[in-house]
Amino acid sequence: MTDEISVRVPLDVPESAKATYIDNYLLVTQYSGNLMLFAGDQKMEHLNDDFYGEGIATDDADPEHLFRIADEGRIGVFATQLGLITQYGMDYPDIPYLVKMNSKTHLVKTAQKDPLSPQLFAMQQVVDLRDRTGLDITGIGYTIYLGSENEAQMLREAALLIGEAHAHGLLTVLWIYPRGAAVGDEKDPHLIAGATGVAATLGSDFVKVNAPKKDGESTAAMLKEATMAAGRTKVVCAGGSSVSAEAFLKQLSEQLTVGGCSGNATGRNIHQKPLDEAVRMCNAISALTIDGASVEDAMVIYTGTQE
Amino acid sequence: MTDEISVRVPLDVPESAKATYIDNYLLVTQYSGNLMLFAGDQKMEHLNDDFYGEGIATDDADPEHLFRIADEGRIGVFATQLGLITQYGMDYPDIPYLVKMNSKTHLVKTAQKDPLSPQLFAMQQVVDLRDRTGLDITGIGYTIYLGSENEAQMLREAALLIGEAHAHGLLTVLWIYPRGAAVGDEKDPHLIAGATGVAATLGSDFVKVNAPKKDGESTAAMLKEATMAAGRTKVVCAGGSSVSAEAFLKQLSEQLTVGGCSGNATGRNIHQKPLDEAVRMCNAISALTIDGASVEDAMVIYTGTQE
Amino acid sequence: MTDEISVRVPLDVPESAKATYIDNYLLVTQYSGNLMLFAGDQKMEHLNDDFYGEGIATDDADPEHLFRIADEGRIGVFATQLGLITQYGMDYPDIPYLVKMNSKTHLVKTAQKDPLSPQLFAMQQVVDLRDRTGLDITGIGYTIYLGSENEAQMLREAALLIGEAHAHGLLTVLWIYPRGAAVGDEKDPHLIAGATGVAATLGSDFVKVNAPKKDGESTAAMLKEATMAAGRTKVVCAGGSSVSAEAFLKQLSEQLTVGGCSGNATGRNIHQKPLDEAVRMCNAISALTIDGASVEDAMVIYTGTQE
Amino acid sequence: MTDEISVRVPLDVPESAKATYIDNYLLVTQYSGNLMLFAGDQKMEHLNDDFYGEGIATDDADPEHLFRIADEGRIGVFATQLGLITQYGMDYPDIPYLVKMNSKTHLVKTAQKDPLSPQLFAMQQVVDLRDRTGLDITGIGYTIYLGSENEAQMLREAALLIGEAHAHGLLTVLWIYPRGAAVGDEKDPHLIAGATGVAATLGSDFVKVNAPKKDGESTAAMLKEATMAAGRTKVVCAGGSSVSAEAFLKQLSEQLTVGGCSGNATGRNIHQKPLDEAVRMCNAISALTIDGASVEDAMVIYTGTQE
Amino acid sequence: MTDEISVRVPLDVPESAKATYIDNYLLVTQYSGNLMLFAGDQKMEHLNDDFYGEGIATDDADPEHLFRIADEGRIGVFATQLGLITQYGMDYPDIPYLVKMNSKTHLVKTAQKDPLSPQLFAMQQVVDLRDRTGLDITGIGYTIYLGSENEAQMLREAALLIGEAHAHGLLTVLWIYPRGAAVGDEKDPHLIAGATGVAATLGSDFVKVNAPKKDGESTAAMLKEATMAAGRTKVVCAGGSSVSAEAFLKQLSEQLTVGGCSGNATGRNIHQKPLDEAVRMCNAISALTIDGASVEDAMVIYTGTQE
Repeated sequence: MTDEISVRVPLDVPESAKATYIDNYLLVTQYSGNLMLFAGDQKMEHLNDDFYGEGIATDDADPEHLFRIADEGRIGVFATQLGLITQYGMDYPDIPYLVKMNSKTHLVKTAQKDPLSPQLFAMQQVVDLRDRTGLDITGIGYTIYLGSENEAQMLREAALLIGEAHAHGLLTVLWIYPRGAAVGDEKDPHLIAGATGVAATLGSDFVKVNAPKKDGESTAAMLKEATMAAGRTKVVCAGGSSVSAEAFLKQLSEQLTVGGCSGNATGRNIHQKPLDEAVRMCNAISALTIDGASVEDAMVIYTGTQE
Repeated sequence: MTDEISVRVPLDVPESAKATYIDNYLLVTQYSGNLMLFAGDQKMEHLNDDFYGEGIATDDADPEHLFRIADEGRIGVFATQLGLITQYGMDYPDIPYLVKMNSKTHLVKTAQKDPLSPQLFAMQQVVDLRDRTGLDITGIGYTIYLGSENEAQMLREAALLIGEAHAHGLLTVLWIYPRGAAVGDEKDPHLIAGATGVAATLGSDFVKVNAPKKDGESTAAMLKEATMAAGRTKVVCAGGSSVSAEAFLKQLSEQLTVGGCSGNATGRNIHQKPLDEAVRMCNAISALTIDGASVEDAMVIYTGTQE
Repeated sequence: MTDEISVRVPLDVPESAKATYIDNYLLVTQYSGNLMLFAGDQKMEHLNDDFYGEGIATDDADPEHLFRIADEGRIGVFATQLGLITQYGMDYPDIPYLVKMNSKTHLVKTAQKDPLSPQLFAMQQVVDLRDRTGLDITGIGYTIYLGSENEAQMLREAALLIGEAHAHGLLTVLWIYPRGAAVGDEKDPHLIAGATGVAATLGSDFVKVNAPKKDGESTAAMLKEATMAAGRTKVVCAGGSSVSAEAFLKQLSEQLTVGGCSGNATGRNIHQKPLDEAVRMCNAISALTIDGASVEDAMVIYTGTQE
Repeated sequence: MTDEISVRVPLDVPESAKATYIDNYLLVTQYSGNLMLFAGDQKMEHLNDDFYGEGIATDDADPEHLFRIADEGRIGVFATQLGLITQYGMDYPDIPYLVKMNSKTHLVKTAQKDPLSPQLFAMQQVVDLRDRTGLDITGIGYTIYLGSENEAQMLREAALLIGEAHAHGLLTVLWIYPRGAAVGDEKDPHLIAGATGVAATLGSDFVKVNAPKKDGESTAAMLKEATMAAGRTKVVCAGGSSVSAEAFLKQLSEQLTVGGCSGNATGRNIHQKPLDEAVRMCNAISALTIDGASVEDAMVIYTGTQE
Repeated sequence: MTDEISVRVPLDVPESAKATYIDNYLLVTQYSGNLMLFAGDQKMEHLNDDFYGEGIATDDADPEHLFRIADEGRIGVFATQLGLITQYGMDYPDIPYLVKMNSKTHLVKTAQKDPLSPQLFAMQQVVDLRDRTGLDITGIGYTIYLGSENEAQMLREAALLIGEAHAHGLLTVLWIYPRGAAVGDEKDPHLIAGATGVAATLGSDFVKVNAPKKDGESTAAMLKEATMAAGRTKVVCAGGSSVSAEAFLKQLSEQLTVGGCSGNATGRNIHQKPLDEAVRMCNAISALTIDGASVEDAMVIYTGTQE
């Protein structure tokens, strides 16, 4: 009863899907309202660059590594493409999944052509899979390249998908990245606040943006504009692609406490580590995001000195 | 009974939707036939530029500011994207809403590519939301960039949406802005009269245009050509982006009395003010638009000397 | 009975729609087989250029002028966009209407981009309106820019619309204008004969073309090739944009008697005149087109010396 | 019974449509297995160039000329656009028809833009017309410009149309012409063999190609590669655009006997002649194609010395 | 019973289609889990280049050669376009078929335009054919040009087709080739591993890639990254276009034993040989792929010294 009260259900969720929506919301936020999203969609976005090579644990060469982490680590939700779920889901029935609905490779660069990432899967495929298998498919994700000459198609697909997802009680996460010939500074804090505001106009539950950057200013402080502009859409962020675990956790903690973020979306900083370390990294991030732990406590979890 | 007589219902409104159409018309015009439209769609159109920065009240950084104004101020209708309504509508059930069906960001400039603003939401989403929640969703809005190389898609989407909206008893407002490589002077009064005539050929109830500008001529007088060309489609206008409240109200009054306009569509001149002042601005504008008040009386309302 | 025999019904009109087709045919040709089409679609095609300015009667600034003319003058059919019909049709229930299904503005010139005029309205909107209101909606019109890089889309939409229109007993008029970077001489008589032949392959009832022009040759004589090439599709023509009434009527008479045309499509030469003169112009044109009157008799009607 | 055995029915013809397919096959091949196709789709493809001018019989200026020839001459099937059939079919109920489903004009040249000829009519229009009127609509035709930058759309439309046609018991004829910036020599025999092979992969019953040309080599001999590559898809060819009747018949005879062709597709070499001569030309061609007559016997028929 | 256990059925195969999926899997892998795919889709991809000319057996000029080989040789599955199956399937009812759903010609080169190979056939055509004829249509194939400016359309079509195929119990094979202006080295092993990873994200059962190449490195060893990245999607490879049979078999053997491949996709190295030799080549390849034979044993089969 109290649970139902604590989740604000958007009005495009029909009565028949409300309980499902609330269950999904509580599951992925672990009753905290904050989201720890483990991102595993890079096999299409970055091909094998993130999974094989110097500095990457050999565990990561096998896609099952992602499922092992999501299964053993403490996460809110595991985001990946539908095809991986259909192939591994039978062995990992306890993971909360989020289906990434669009993706593109990084082969065609912005200098050649403004980015377009089209919807790959139909909502009915997602819902059928959920209803037939009983897997915890809790939501969908979609990436928008704001400022691309092709933003029109992505804004439209996102708007329609959010309506369809909510109609089925599914949560939505938008990844919004300003990119294209028209975009000067992709990390400009004011532009990133524009991106979170767009997510609000589309009615998404969550929006993931890149952390803003400006010389001599605090990332977390700059995020405030974005988290305000997002209104009731919750903002999740990532600490960047290659930093030490401690620096990463410190940055995330500030995003949560100073920047007003409601969670994180983390991929490479987790799965490029060997399984055991990756699991501990998940647990440390979840402690910050879900439990509101301190960076010191999170580091204890990550280093495995104690648990 | 007399109400039904005073509203001319377009012939594409079927018998079953006539009462709804008339109710919507009377509601948004407050029985005056004139429309005070509070425009709140800029979070996608202008990203965070209109909501955060120098000269903008800090209240405006939070999207809920728009709803608070629409709730407390006297307005005809509040126009915004569907996603914001699904997230805030449960707390603001008394606002008359108009769903802006298309939007684009301002990142890609006309010099790079002619503008295209595609339909984002499906009519069924709008109607479902209305019918399920009982919210006063009274109509839809759509922007056409006339003279864009992409005008074909927008003219077509607008034509179909107007038919669908009327079929459900919903009102329609077109925003028509001449823009694109082919357009020399976007504020040319003759071209703006062309824009209102296009709205008439599409059968829209209202059309919002920018105020014409020409050296040494009166804006209000120049609007006459446009309000004549619009025929039975009513023209609403805006006073411009950054003027003093008094100048704004004076300009609007002339548009109504001299230019033949039937209302206003105002956004930044309202929501960039703190809540209390924004509410008084709404009330002042409504006095002009709906009650036919004088500028002096409107200023009394705006300054709060009396009410 | 004799009526049914005199109208050749195309084979894509099903049995259930034959009576409607014949009624429409007889109505718009006033039992003469010839069509007097009053064209009122320029508010989108030419924006306000044809309706306001030097040499144009002030009556023409108001779209209702078109309806007044169509109501008081003798015409075969009044062609305009659906939106104007939905707004004025309740006050002009006796006009025979033809819905212009596509239109574009003239802002983007051929030098910038080859022309594309997309279908704006769905056939179902037209049929619903007819069936619900009982208005005499007798047919549909569509413009094809032959030789445009976009001709593919227009040929396809026209072909499908003709099939749909005939399925509902509606007549069809194609406007076919050669235009685009590939077109050298838009008025070449051989090319115009190609255009009327295209209308025949698409199965249209009527085709409107511009009058051919070549130095030292008679327009009417040059039209013969086109009216032969059209086969059973009837050709209607226009006298040009700005000539004296007498020159206009003389040219039209020759198109009918020498060129083999079966009617006219006239817009600006009618509606840019004050109401009374416009009505007399309609009546004069109808006398030529429908009654086979002489130019002299038509001029008597136009000048109002007698009626 | 024996008939059913002699026609190999493709597997995408369902049981319910087999008898229709076999009837159509036997009708258009006149029980010979060879096809005499009278091509009358040039009014869109070549506008009026093929029908009016020096060296063209005046009969040809009227589209009905095509129907008169098809009615009086001996042909296998008359290929033309749907619109002409709907306008003339009531007076020519005995002609076996084949509906040309796509067409384009020749105005935009390959140097300006790679060719695209889009599907104009929906299969349902064709089937409805057949079923309602009882006309012998026996099949459909479609043109593919292989090597065009737009070949993707045409290959796809052709593949889907063949499936739909066979589902309704209709035959299919593909016109395949290599054309576009990527195509060096449109008449290269090896490339033309590629074209017939493509028709086989799409499952078409017949494919029409242009005769290959190479200095010092026999056209008929060069066709062998193409007729082999086509497998069970039958190849029909044309003698070229402007040769003497005798040269034309000689060339066709060699295509049939040496080149392995199974018929012809002939247009201008027939319809540019006066009716009587055109009919005799049809009869002469049919004697070659269907009866396996000698060139001498065919010439006797053509010259009318005997019949 | 044991069979059902040995095949891992993806979760997008519904209960009703599971038995069909398992049967298809066991049939095409001949209970080995490895796939010997005989590729016969080049008549569209390469036109007649692969079938006629110097060094190609004259048998190959006739498309039926492909069916004869597939019928007499030992293969896992024969991949070709739907149109060939509809024309030859009635005479070759015992071949296991896989329908290649998209294809393009090689006429437009990458330097002119980035490649696009659109879906040609609808899934319903495939399923109807299977269900009506009882042919062993076991799966579908689709080619993606990764890194093409048009990759969006192909990724989307592939994703939807895989869902539809699995819904009907059909297997899926993706051909993924990096190609386009953005692709520097199409044979880069790391890029090819990216391609197999993409197949995994789309949930395909098999993926066919070209063998990687790098100076001084073993192809088979380089394939390991790709077979790891593919996860549960099985990788099949080809030995290249023109090598001696022994070199080909040796290379394939290494791909299977060292590279971790689960089969082969071979076309020209089979069908360009005369029928008898082609059949022995199939048998030799199948011995390697399915039975795990040694290269020496395979050579004995190929040379026909023994069987």
